[in-house]
Amino acid sequence: MEFWYTEEWTENIRFGVKVTQHVYHQHSDFQQVDVFKSEELGTFLTLDGLMMVNEKDEFVYHDMIVHTPMAVNPNIKKVLVIGGGDGGTVRELTRYPHIEQIDMVEIDELVVRASQEWIPQCASQLDDSRVNLYFEDGVAFCAQAKNATYDLIIVDSTDPIGPGEGLFTTAFYTDCHRILSEQGILVNQNESPYFAHNAKEMQRAHAKLQTIFQVSRVYQAHIPTYPSGHWLFGFASKGLDPIQDAKFAQWNEFGLQTKYYNTDLHVGSFALPTYVLEMLANAK
Amino acid sequence: MEFWYTEEWTENIRFGVKVTQHVYHQHSDFQQVDVFKSEELGTFLTLDGLMMVNEKDEFVYHDMIVHTPMAVNPNIKKVLVIGGGDGGTVRELTRYPHIEQIDMVEIDELVVRASQEWIPQCASQLDDSRVNLYFEDGVAFCAQAKNATYDLIIVDSTDPIGPGEGLFTTAFYTDCHRILSEQGILVNQNESPYFAHNAKEMQRAHAKLQTIFQVSRVYQAHIPTYPSGHWLFGFASKGLDPIQDAKFAQWNEFGLQTKYYNTDLHVGSFALPTYVLEMLANAK
Repeated sequence: MEFWYTEEWTENIRFGVKVTQHVYHQHSDFQQVDVFKSEELGTFLTLDGLMMVNEKDEFVYHDMIVHTPMAVNPNIKKVLVIGGGDGGTVRELTRYPHIEQIDMVEIDELVVRASQEWIPQCASQLDDSRVNLYFEDGVAFCAQAKNATYDLIIVDSTDPIGPGEGLFTTAFYTDCHRILSEQGILVNQNESPYFAHNAKEMQRAHAKLQTIFQVSRVYQAHIPTYPSGHWLFGFASKGLDPIQDAKFAQWNEFGLQTKYYNTDLHVGSFALPTYVLEMLANAK
Repeated sequence: MEFWYTEEWTENIRFGVKVTQHVYHQHSDFQQVDVFKSEELGTFLTLDGLMMVNEKDEFVYHDMIVHTPMAVNPNIKKVLVIGGGDGGTVRELTRYPHIEQIDMVEIDELVVRASQEWIPQCASQLDDSRVNLYFEDGVAFCAQAKNATYDLIIVDSTDPIGPGEGLFTTAFYTDCHRILSEQGILVNQNESPYFAHNAKEMQRAHAKLQTIFQVSRVYQAHIPTYPSGHWLFGFASKGLDPIQDAKFAQWNEFGLQTKYYNTDLHVGSFALPTYVLEMLANAK
């Protein structure tokens, strides 16, 4: 007998993972939370039947969403993480001793608790003394936050359907801009260019960010368990350019061991395929 | 009723494509050749149940395997393609008017005939007057070829199992080196770093190329329908460096419209994730 977790990347494309055990299944107020064990990917967590995080490739996503902005401005001290319930983003942030404050705003406490129980590889640093956990709506949290509170905002969200929807709006990005310091950076998971429905969301998010932020760029990574394996991140700032202003020597002096990110790849990740550049240029 | 083409990326990972029609199914002397139609990927061809080429993402592979070496040495005039039965590599090569000769050595004529019938998007230029088709074993062809015959060899092979096996051997690479001109380049599809069995072949191929060629580098692309979507190419030469020696201005003057490749991405594609760099450094 075999159990397969099957995700519909589109109506016509499926990605399947052979599962050894379905260890967690709960409906929260916001979504369905499941945890599975598998031989190939280790333990993995899904929300509403979509892969969020697994032990095998989570390093790619978390490296790219954290170390990229940290190399552009290695003096970042105050960080806001929106979403990120699995804890992987916070884990990477806590590796910088000079970061003073990490506020994490996750709407769904159940995601955090499930991750703490089943995926400590990600959630292990959520009890770091610099971390403040808020189980609240990230949109409302940012609307209420004071001007120039953060040096870095990481939008570590689900897709723009369900609880993640508000995190792809102009109102939210405008608040992010307001509560960022002058050297501040916003990084967001920015969907994929490959399948049409993901590409549409990617374009919509980029178009909005571009209107609000002085600098708005997109970079890419190989994340095999997300639809198409071709995933994008947005980088937005009030002026810092992700390559020209990067402090690679300073970042390398931190001596952090990383499995995916390095400063050459940082530069390379902003070099996008022509069809993606065209999609971004035509984004509305 | 639904038909799904399902490929086992590993024993524990499956990739499925909803099929509208199974239009071709033949056993050649070498392998099983199938062609399917689908809504998401258009028409696609498989060999022994492995995705070789589909209308939706073939541009990535063919852009990267052809334009990358052509930008390093835009004066390439004589090209040898080993494998490449679908014709996509030849199609991209024929876009350079100054290329004088394209010898394509495909062991399996059936792959060419099936592609000509069902995937003209790829096979359309195989009747270009500069193209010489040889339905022969690529290993034997190279063993018999004269010294310094080619400026570029593209190894557009299947995996190193079955008919493609000889194309991953030291003897074959040694002949390639011998029949390349001094400014010559060898490019090969070099498997994937992500799933263990692909990564092992990637390391083996790289280790051999490194012993034989003065320059041996690896570059990457996003190919969603190959296992993990993270695919690598090898670049080997007698001295030309894929970045330092590239003639980007000259290449851009050709004015070729490409969907994936561009000269910024060329540079970026050689910036590999840290775990891949470590695999290559430890390759035996």
